[in-house]
Amino acid sequence: MTTLRVPLAERSYDVHIANFSVDEVADRIVASIGKPSGVAVLVDERVAQVSPRVPALMSALSGRLPKVQRHLLPRGESCKNLESVERTCQWLAESGYDRGSVVVGIGGGAATDHAGFVAAVYLRGVAFALCPTTLLATVDASVGGKTGVDIAAGKNLVGAFYQPRVVVADLSFFETLPKRELVAGMAEVVKAGLIADQALFAKLEAEGAAAYVPDSLAAAITAAVAVKVAVVGEDERESGRRAILNFGHTVGHAIEAASGYELLHGEAVSLGMVAALAVGEARGVTRPGLGERVRALLARLSLPVDVKARLSAEVLVRIEVDKKRRTDAVRFVLVPRPGEAILCDIPLQELKEQVLASVLP
Amino acid sequence: MTTLRVPLAERSYDVHIANFSVDEVADRIVASIGKPSGVAVLVDERVAQVSPRVPALMSALSGRLPKVQRHLLPRGESCKNLESVERTCQWLAESGYDRGSVVVGIGGGAATDHAGFVAAVYLRGVAFALCPTTLLATVDASVGGKTGVDIAAGKNLVGAFYQPRVVVADLSFFETLPKRELVAGMAEVVKAGLIADQALFAKLEAEGAAAYVPDSLAAAITAAVAVKVAVVGEDERESGRRAILNFGHTVGHAIEAASGYELLHGEAVSLGMVAALAVGEARGVTRPGLGERVRALLARLSLPVDVKARLSAEVLVRIEVDKKRRTDAVRFVLVPRPGEAILCDIPLQELKEQVLASVLP
Repeated sequence: MTTLRVPLAERSYDVHIANFSVDEVADRIVASIGKPSGVAVLVDERVAQVSPRVPALMSALSGRLPKVQRHLLPRGESCKNLESVERTCQWLAESGYDRGSVVVGIGGGAATDHAGFVAAVYLRGVAFALCPTTLLATVDASVGGKTGVDIAAGKNLVGAFYQPRVVVADLSFFETLPKRELVAGMAEVVKAGLIADQALFAKLEAEGAAAYVPDSLAAAITAAVAVKVAVVGEDERESGRRAILNFGHTVGHAIEAASGYELLHGEAVSLGMVAALAVGEARGVTRPGLGERVRALLARLSLPVDVKARLSAEVLVRIEVDKKRRTDAVRFVLVPRPGEAILCDIPLQELKEQVLASVLP
Repeated sequence: MTTLRVPLAERSYDVHIANFSVDEVADRIVASIGKPSGVAVLVDERVAQVSPRVPALMSALSGRLPKVQRHLLPRGESCKNLESVERTCQWLAESGYDRGSVVVGIGGGAATDHAGFVAAVYLRGVAFALCPTTLLATVDASVGGKTGVDIAAGKNLVGAFYQPRVVVADLSFFETLPKRELVAGMAEVVKAGLIADQALFAKLEAEGAAAYVPDSLAAAITAAVAVKVAVVGEDERESGRRAILNFGHTVGHAIEAASGYELLHGEAVSLGMVAALAVGEARGVTRPGLGERVRALLARLSLPVDVKARLSAEVLVRIEVDKKRRTDAVRFVLVPRPGEAILCDIPLQELKEQVLASVLP
């Protein structure tokens, strides 16, 4: 088992990573939340259906804590909106959960973002704990305190910075995770290596598809979470350095939205990284050839790399409404070499041209 | 002009109170928000219709700050829900407001609660300033950082603690405020005197209806805001002492909800204070006779005092779902004598009986 501590100004918390028994998961949650007046467990509907760990975990929690009740969240991204948040808050109120209650979120990134945002706003804030069940949520959404939902104008445009009391990443949940989702999550692992952990990137390049072997995967996850923990610890509110975590996300989010969310987030980030490396090479910032190396690695990991097929006029328009945009320039993350990231304000027009040029023959 | 400083852990801010010119209002906003990338002015629709100060203020702001645009909020309480918050966020995103933008909220308590919550969650938080236009919002909603909206299960069940950069309380807005709303707001002024400012309470008792004379009113407002500032400064997150501000609110909120919000918040608080003093007398905490004195004062101020007419079975049920409730007891505020408040956990059953007994002949 690995435990990483996220050091924050107000309160630090632990991220535990391993194949746990449900009793171990429950014990770690109990240890971090004190004596709550009740425990509201929000679970992604699909996870509740397919994973025998959910009922087992409910039993384990019920044996240790008061008023443990379950509420199902609409599967996947369909819980990531304000209507769904309102329904969850209505359920919490009707069930009598008060300010001394704790929310436990179980599911992928959408469910953990939903659970965290609900915890942030229900009664103006209650404590929460997270059990990510996907690779993406484990290495990305569950650490860092970014919670939120989508609105018509874009993803994650409504949310809060709100930190959990603990994250218990039980890798046993991956047993019931669809292969496509496991693969998509790997994009964020590659990203972590590229922006801040040269050794992780080298390991992935050396292993290729073998990176999915459980022990290798656990090691890669730990390294990726460590990157996120370090960056978040430096800059909780994303006032500066934390933005490097958005590598591949400016173009990625636009591609994801333009696909009508048919693409998974990790798949879109894979494409976004290919584009971002091309922009970096065009600007003379990224070491020549790195784009090709990364493209090859992503392909070996079964991730999509064909940006050209996805680059429509709509994608370019969507880059404009990216929320990280400040006035006329886009705050863009470039990777000069594996393990190193820099922030760069690129004029919108220039960015569009360089993204476009990257896919021209 | 009076300026009160709200001292908070992370960042303090000023509350300015006076009859200002629009240029003075604009100058105070500019001084507190630095150099924003844009200014989104959220205005209660009714205020925008009736007050000539709104277009004048828009001009004054436009002359000083970039990208000053106006968005109307559904009048009064009808903006205090998540649907309306989503519409505002959608407008902000479509209008290209980014993280460097500032929200300015103009209106009554519902509009300022809406504006504050939008500022708390749009892009996970942007800066905001408030111009309360009602007496209630001036002495209550605009100070303290409690923002939020209602859901079907109850008022203010979804929200955030989020502090403004500045509050400019321009009493000139009261010129277009309906008399009934001015009167309702006075309930919170009486409350401030009762819980923490004996001199304010004595002044109100000495003046009666003359408390509405502009100069008297300005002095009373300043005293009431000072109470709120002191209490909030001690306990930003309502972990303890701040709860005394809820005096009259447990029963008041229940009456307000049971009336289908036909009663104004201040009117319901007036009735709630009458009930809370009766409970205090029944428990031997409140000095005998204080209930009658307060009832007489509220009546002279044209506030409703006939609790009996409003005490239905529904009200008693609604007290149970009050969000301040912890397990089986209600965290209740009692006033032993003017200027002093104590917190008391009262078993739910006992509370209901004492509230009921208070209205029996």
